Amino acid sequence: MNKLKTIKGGVTAAKGFRAAAVFAGIKPSNKSRADLALVASEVPAVAAGVFTTNRVKAAPVRVSRAHLRAPQACAVLLNSGNANACTGPCGIAAAKSLTASLADVLDCGVRRVLVCSTGRIGVPLPLEKMTEKLPELAARLSAQGGRDAAQAIMTSDTFAKEFAIEVRAPGGVFRVGGMAKGAGMIDPNMATMLCLLTTDAKISKGTLQNALHTAVERSFNRITVDGDMSTNDTVLVLANGAAGGAPIKSGSPEHTLFTEALNEVCTRLAFMIVRDGEGVSKFVTVQVRGASSLQAARKVCEAVANSTLVKCAWAGNDPNWGRILDAAGYCGVRIREELVDIYYDGVVAVRGGTAAPTPKDKLVKAVSGDKFTVTIDLHQGKAFYTVYTTDLTEKYVELNLSE
Amino acid sequence: MNKLKTIKGGVTAAKGFRAAAVFAGIKPSNKSRADLALVASEVPAVAAGVFTTNRVKAAPVRVSRAHLRAPQACAVLLNSGNANACTGPCGIAAAKSLTASLADVLDCGVRRVLVCSTGRIGVPLPLEKMTEKLPELAARLSAQGGRDAAQAIMTSDTFAKEFAIEVRAPGGVFRVGGMAKGAGMIDPNMATMLCLLTTDAKISKGTLQNALHTAVERSFNRITVDGDMSTNDTVLVLANGAAGGAPIKSGSPEHTLFTEALNEVCTRLAFMIVRDGEGVSKFVTVQVRGASSLQAARKVCEAVANSTLVKCAWAGNDPNWGRILDAAGYCGVRIREELVDIYYDGVVAVRGGTAAPTPKDKLVKAVSGDKFTVTIDLHQGKAFYTVYTTDLTEKYVELNLSE
Repeated sequence: MNKLKTIKGGVTAAKGFRAAAVFAGIKPSNKSRADLALVASEVPAVAAGVFTTNRVKAAPVRVSRAHLRAPQACAVLLNSGNANACTGPCGIAAAKSLTASLADVLDCGVRRVLVCSTGRIGVPLPLEKMTEKLPELAARLSAQGGRDAAQAIMTSDTFAKEFAIEVRAPGGVFRVGGMAKGAGMIDPNMATMLCLLTTDAKISKGTLQNALHTAVERSFNRITVDGDMSTNDTVLVLANGAAGGAPIKSGSPEHTLFTEALNEVCTRLAFMIVRDGEGVSKFVTVQVRGASSLQAARKVCEAVANSTLVKCAWAGNDPNWGRILDAAGYCGVRIREELVDIYYDGVVAVRGGTAAPTPKDKLVKAVSGDKFTVTIDLHQGKAFYTVYTTDLTEKYVELNLSE
Repeated sequence: MNKLKTIKGGVTAAKGFRAAAVFAGIKPSNKSRADLALVASEVPAVAAGVFTTNRVKAAPVRVSRAHLRAPQACAVLLNSGNANACTGPCGIAAAKSLTASLADVLDCGVRRVLVCSTGRIGVPLPLEKMTEKLPELAARLSAQGGRDAAQAIMTSDTFAKEFAIEVRAPGGVFRVGGMAKGAGMIDPNMATMLCLLTTDAKISKGTLQNALHTAVERSFNRITVDGDMSTNDTVLVLANGAAGGAPIKSGSPEHTLFTEALNEVCTRLAFMIVRDGEGVSKFVTVQVRGASSLQAARKVCEAVANSTLVKCAWAGNDPNWGRILDAAGYCGVRIREELVDIYYDGVVAVRGGTAAPTPKDKLVKAVSGDKFTVTIDLHQGKAFYTVYTTDLTEKYVELNLSE
């Protein structure tokens, strides 16, 4: 029996979580589309987070990181349309003010409120508009509100991203769900992305934080669309224990299943982000194996996945392995050209650093689909790494000519 | 009196150099356009070179590097249409064979012949076609052949790139000239670019090599179009002493003037390469100042100049400083967001990490021209660095969908 089962929903799939969204008019041009979301736990939850490593950090990142030091959290406020980044001390004040106002409305401690923003950088948050919507937002909270929240955090996303899993563990049943938004600025070490995960499992803060780190490392840190890492990247998880039962202990079968479920939800959401990258037409898995170290494998993966020329070739159905080998060569890893093999979906393109005798039409076919894998075998060791990326299309450039 | 004067021509501007080009049919689709060039010195010259740091090195790079160990050089053979890269031992043999055949034709030692290739990666060189053209090529050598050679090395370049300077030094007059090709794969530490420089100054091999390193560091290593560094990047210089006079001594006024002239020729050629980048519509100078170290200044420069999102914004006349600050934040330098100022052509866009009160139309105007400077002041120290780059257009992607 499979112990992990996909279920409907996202942040409200787990017991004891409610969500809602309203239109606050944060970005004047987003007429009438909801842009402010709230996700709340009926009982105080333990929480953990992973944030952008960009030195330029948005105000909500700074405030949420500070609030996560509190033992518990009750709610997360999220908005699209404005990133509240590069907004100086006023931006910090605005983010803090929102948490304070929401804490008032929800009647909880201010440090139990977390906040996430995504959208335009450098524009002051329309604080008044947002604050006056908080009572309505709280009043609308519902166990069916997950979808509305997932839609409200979209920016240039073309679809709402939700995923949830039910876990049947020996000690009982629990759920892990989540929502995310992505689109531009997607890079390893995260992106202009927000992700909020919820679970009704009972787990300690430390165990939760470790599990989240592992899951992010295997999912969001392995996706790249354009190589740009944003100022707002945030992954949060709230665990409210509403499923009941004993707390999940490190090393127990429940712990293994919980980790697996969290990884799976993060991976599915990360794939949705890549698939929905701005102007993207292909989902490409870049695998490096035979590297002398994990670090080397990762460097080669990322150089190939972020090469403008490699990505343009993919958009044009061109199995241009020269550009791949070129990127592998300049990334700083001491590869040995004459040892390198390259495959497109298992079809050998390069053998020992030079063209394999594969008919070109076979290679063209391999890169012409909307999903394929590039495998680079360095034949220098046993380390391997995988990154998920996209092609680079004219549409991407068009979409990013201005914000 | 200005001691450096721009003169007409390129590789044959200096005395005692001749050049020629022929059509060898190297790339079948390049119908009738000359694709094989020869530049020769009438007397043996000292030579120096700087090559790609890509671990994947084209065969001509390996062969020329080895031949440069000889004390003198007589000729350089250059072709477009085929990079002779990722071609394995056969590629090396082909490059060596060409130098041997040409040495026969020119009646000089094989190690006095250098070779450069640019074009498609991974395709065997059409050795026979090229070899049979060598006698004709040698017969056509002329002191007026510089322009033909510059045209023959073009790939997706839209214009031939030549520049030359005459230097009136206390010890006599000498000339420095050169030609280059660029277009795609332009990155710091060079590019899919070839550059051949010639001078009739009398100079030692060691002094020449040092001067070339400095000149390349200040010119070709500071330009970037797409962040991809090629397998074939080569800058060669030949000095034949035909101007007469005493050898240029390190530290002499002649040495200063020679270095200045070499820098100027390299910089002008580098700028032409940027200006002619594939699908490029803007020439952008990125200056970082106030950095805590040169290394830090360079990292920030390169992150901004290579950010896909920053470059897309420029293409759209969008003075999007948020993307610039974002790139500065993720490049690994410990910048302090609250100290950063950003200017577009001297107009302040960001003051202390947040929007300056400059009217948006002034900033839009600053980025709407086809040439502007972005200045980023980190206010952390005294180091500065400059990189020359371009915008990223839909046209670039279109041109690179396939080769």
